[in-house]
Amino acid sequence: MQPAASPDIDGIVERLSRGAREAARALARASTAAKDRALRDAAAGLRDGRSALLSANRDDVERARAAGESAAFVDRLTLTPDRIEAMARGLEDIAALPDPVGETIAAWRRPNGLEIAQVRVPIGVVLTIYESRPNVTADSAALCVKTANAVLLKGGSESQATSGAIATVIRSAVAGAGLPIDAVQPVEGGREVVRGLLRRDDRIDVVIARGGETLKRTIMEESRIPVVKHFEGICHLYVDAAADLDMAERLCLNAKVQRPSVCNAIENLVVHEAVAGALLPRLTAALRASGCEVRGDAATRAIVPDVHPASDADWDTEYLDLILSIRVIPSLDEALAFIAAHGTGLAEAVVTEDYGVAERFLHEVDAAAVFVNASTRFTDGYEFGFGAEVGISTNRLHARGPMGLRELTTYKYLVRGDGQVRG
Amino acid sequence: MQPAASPDIDGIVERLSRGAREAARALARASTAAKDRALRDAAAGLRDGRSALLSANRDDVERARAAGESAAFVDRLTLTPDRIEAMARGLEDIAALPDPVGETIAAWRRPNGLEIAQVRVPIGVVLTIYESRPNVTADSAALCVKTANAVLLKGGSESQATSGAIATVIRSAVAGAGLPIDAVQPVEGGREVVRGLLRRDDRIDVVIARGGETLKRTIMEESRIPVVKHFEGICHLYVDAAADLDMAERLCLNAKVQRPSVCNAIENLVVHEAVAGALLPRLTAALRASGCEVRGDAATRAIVPDVHPASDADWDTEYLDLILSIRVIPSLDEALAFIAAHGTGLAEAVVTEDYGVAERFLHEVDAAAVFVNASTRFTDGYEFGFGAEVGISTNRLHARGPMGLRELTTYKYLVRGDGQVRG
Repeated sequence: MQPAASPDIDGIVERLSRGAREAARALARASTAAKDRALRDAAAGLRDGRSALLSANRDDVERARAAGESAAFVDRLTLTPDRIEAMARGLEDIAALPDPVGETIAAWRRPNGLEIAQVRVPIGVVLTIYESRPNVTADSAALCVKTANAVLLKGGSESQATSGAIATVIRSAVAGAGLPIDAVQPVEGGREVVRGLLRRDDRIDVVIARGGETLKRTIMEESRIPVVKHFEGICHLYVDAAADLDMAERLCLNAKVQRPSVCNAIENLVVHEAVAGALLPRLTAALRASGCEVRGDAATRAIVPDVHPASDADWDTEYLDLILSIRVIPSLDEALAFIAAHGTGLAEAVVTEDYGVAERFLHEVDAAAVFVNASTRFTDGYEFGFGAEVGISTNRLHARGPMGLRELTTYKYLVRGDGQVRG
Repeated sequence: MQPAASPDIDGIVERLSRGAREAARALARASTAAKDRALRDAAAGLRDGRSALLSANRDDVERARAAGESAAFVDRLTLTPDRIEAMARGLEDIAALPDPVGETIAAWRRPNGLEIAQVRVPIGVVLTIYESRPNVTADSAALCVKTANAVLLKGGSESQATSGAIATVIRSAVAGAGLPIDAVQPVEGGREVVRGLLRRDDRIDVVIARGGETLKRTIMEESRIPVVKHFEGICHLYVDAAADLDMAERLCLNAKVQRPSVCNAIENLVVHEAVAGALLPRLTAALRASGCEVRGDAATRAIVPDVHPASDADWDTEYLDLILSIRVIPSLDEALAFIAAHGTGLAEAVVTEDYGVAERFLHEVDAAAVFVNASTRFTDGYEFGFGAEVGISTNRLHARGPMGLRELTTYKYLVRGDGQVRG
């Protein structure tokens, strides 16, 4: 048991969560026009406030440099005029999307005359916890304003000055559009404030966790509030005996090399033994030509002897890097079993011209997105046509896979009668 | 921090959760015909095994009597030939419902030719924790078999022999239909086993909690797995200034008196002051004639002086009994604020002939089900037309309000391509 938080921490948690809850109630009634105006005004505010944003960002960058952070870290943290313009355009893009709130999901009439409609409504209060890039502050705030959720923004301490300046611009646009200013609140204060917020399931409806695994595990451990997150994405491409090998090579390169640092890139390639001899020499050469290290099991190394041996740990490691592990298997059943054992339920793909194999793979693989003859890299809100991306969920409940604006909503039932009583 | 569980407990938890996870994988591929056959055979098995069930039940009943349990408790626990027949028919009813698994929720084609389908799939492994009535064992098992979820059944210790006998019948029917026998597993062992299971978010996907508030709060506190549950239902009926008063009286009596012990019965009546004088004398008389105790605020007692004064606590108490508290308010805004302050988000109703009031009430009240001119008692899976009731959820995510078979499913995306790679 942790010691009780100090009255100060309790006060901050109470104030933040009460402000968000009250804002959520008013926000739920906001018109689409007011929400979109807030987003467009916020975009203008980011452009107008460019010099203040750049100056706040310089403080963060200097602190990061002084702390000896890596060049890549400092780059992610750094704002430039171009990046501010991209953020502003991002807000305008979200303003231009259809408003999911109020959408009728289903409606029907009961024999007793009751008219039941299932209608999308905001979830309520969202706590979003994330690391590093400052644009996530603008993005998260905008997605929540659009869906009429009040949001508590907890960014990484490394970008605190920048995030605070961005939040200030957005809050002022929100208030200017006649919406409650506490619809968007930055969470200042350290780990104890976050811990306190994670206990307030009476006030906060959902936590969205973005960032490193440790952060997400800690949140999962401490939260009494449902957490939407994704853990590691260990994705597979399975090249079937009936695969088009040119396509297999193209899909494998795309799924591994195009952007290895993301969750929907593949980590393991599974190849049917019937095509391993024809595929692996050319494929491993192509992978290496793209700078990718190749590891393999004994069967792989019997065909392409110069690949590194894969250890047991390799099959369960999300490299997020240019490393691919290859396994040769004798049957679809073994491929399915291998994927069930090592996949993390995010995205899995098969390359095959065999209809029966395609259908078995689609239906038997348990993952948020299952692909036939397409790259796992399409597991993405924009690529799915959602127009925005809130994140990708490895949860099974509420939201699974790519999340768009709809995944920031829940529903309620509106029931219209003319005096019906239950018998 | 609780001490580490003993190896024995760990072994039971490991065996149960592994069995369920493996069964879930096989079950997800089961045909509708096999699942329905298992349910119909289980119904036949309950009828054929009547004497064994009655004998097991006698043990439970004797233990309950010896422990000095109330007559109502013993009645809920007791099986009779009629109750066994009702259970069997319940299984057959579930077998006759459409199978939600495999249903296409949405499908679309992307400009690059990818065909995306969002398809219903089982959640996976369900742990259901409940108290008292033995028929819940049959019901929960059947709903999970129908939706291809493996289920761990943790009933109350008071009905352990009966529930065990019912589970044995169902397991045998499941195996007879060619499905994995561990699709249905009773959880034997005490609180430590349940505590252990609630930590296994790697193996169990959702907990369904039915039963008393204390049980549910404990589960919420200890579970790392998402819990679907409802807490208390403090439901309101608001009689607007423009209400049809005959309808108001009829709906109030139905919502309070027809079955006061359930969550969708009302606890508070809110009356606009413009109609309080005309409504309250006749309504309080009718309530009393139905055996209902009436409590009221000062304005109510100024009109009907013989009602008990309502205390502050009354507005926040779920009586589950024939007690109603009445509040008189001067405006719709105050009615909405009162309901926001005291409602628990389950079901709220307005009686009005005013279109604008009806629409504001529908859209501004934040509850799973909002009714105009109909009784809150319709907040029910059968009454909504779902054909089965898994429960009623006061969660905001995944399932909100009445839950049918669909609410025991999640979805995945099937993506069919012809070689698409991401640019």
